[in-house]
Amino acid sequence: MKYFNINDINSLDKIFRINLINSCSGFKSANLLGSISTEGNTNLAVFSSVTHLGSNPPTLGFILRPTTVPRDTYKNIRDTGVFTINHIFEDIIEEAHQTSAKYPGDVSEFDITGLEAEFKEACIAPFVKNSPVQMEMKYVEEVYIKSNDVLMIVAQIEKLFVNEKLIHKDGFIDLSAGKVVSINGLDGYAVPKLKERFGYQRPKNK
Amino acid sequence: MKYFNINDINSLDKIFRINLINSCSGFKSANLLGSISTEGNTNLAVFSSVTHLGSNPPTLGFILRPTTVPRDTYKNIRDTGVFTINHIFEDIIEEAHQTSAKYPGDVSEFDITGLEAEFKEACIAPFVKNSPVQMEMKYVEEVYIKSNDVLMIVAQIEKLFVNEKLIHKDGFIDLSAGKVVSINGLDGYAVPKLKERFGYQRPKNK
Repeated sequence: MKYFNINDINSLDKIFRINLINSCSGFKSANLLGSISTEGNTNLAVFSSVTHLGSNPPTLGFILRPTTVPRDTYKNIRDTGVFTINHIFEDIIEEAHQTSAKYPGDVSEFDITGLEAEFKEACIAPFVKNSPVQMEMKYVEEVYIKSNDVLMIVAQIEKLFVNEKLIHKDGFIDLSAGKVVSINGLDGYAVPKLKERFGYQRPKNK
Repeated sequence: MKYFNINDINSLDKIFRINLINSCSGFKSANLLGSISTEGNTNLAVFSSVTHLGSNPPTLGFILRPTTVPRDTYKNIRDTGVFTINHIFEDIIEEAHQTSAKYPGDVSEFDITGLEAEFKEACIAPFVKNSPVQMEMKYVEEVYIKSNDVLMIVAQIEKLFVNEKLIHKDGFIDLSAGKVVSINGLDGYAVPKLKERFGYQRPKNK
């Protein structure tokens, strides 16, 4: 095993450190967040920090650093209270990753990448067409994490669209059947294949 | 597409809703958190919410609901200030998931599952032997997320052990080369395969 203590980590070359620490938490969710400005400019940005917070009410969170990119996403969410979460799937990984480049606020990542915006069910923010899981999210609150100067944005699921082929009888969404991907580090995209479901665990004897 | 609005979601059968909402955020990290009580009892619990918060200082967070299981993990972390994060890999998924059952505080999940505890570099909390990525974490702060009654535990990486075969020249850890898995929903384990790395993105013309 290669061993790094905190002093080693702090002394690493910056790029090496960023790659190492961004890949050491495990595989991450791969989502495109869609939003719209009050002037009507659409925005799309890749995020790898969307996390389940609870099922009742159905709540997700994600992390951003408001003083750096992607500022447009944050401003749009605060101005309109609404955004979408769309799962990245195998066929669009290159286009999805291209949204991580810094474009001016009046440039839509939909135009740049060729990903198609979809508007439905009176949601003002754009969905990503053909994404197998799409959600309209309502901003609920933001929580400041002082020790690292980041925000967790907390939002409630208002509308959920799922490719029906992925839904099992008990509500489980088989993400790998929809070719949903996972992010490794800052720029690695991996394709997971479901291996097994184990069900609810009860204690067993030693 | 199957469509659920918030009223549909709230009216769903409880098990269906929990499965649906736990799988709709995308693939999740798959980690075993190791801790030890002040009496010396080791504890091991599966978590799927470990999230990257920042590289400088190297900081991760995870979500827990302190009033429900796994209480032992939380109590041990608060009492000792230390815990470990160990990546779940393909060969141990069944044993890892078994740690989600509710055992009394004096029963060690290491004994129950057969996973082997490893102690090294003066870390008082147990690592999971053979896990390809292992970290000693220092508790930094906890942030209460009021709208959903959960805590985010914020912790700093003190020591990082990585199977050297997984580390690229630029610091990237190739998790799929270590058979690290990803969690889908509450009980699904998926094995990701790295498809592509795209590198840092600069704006391109339309």
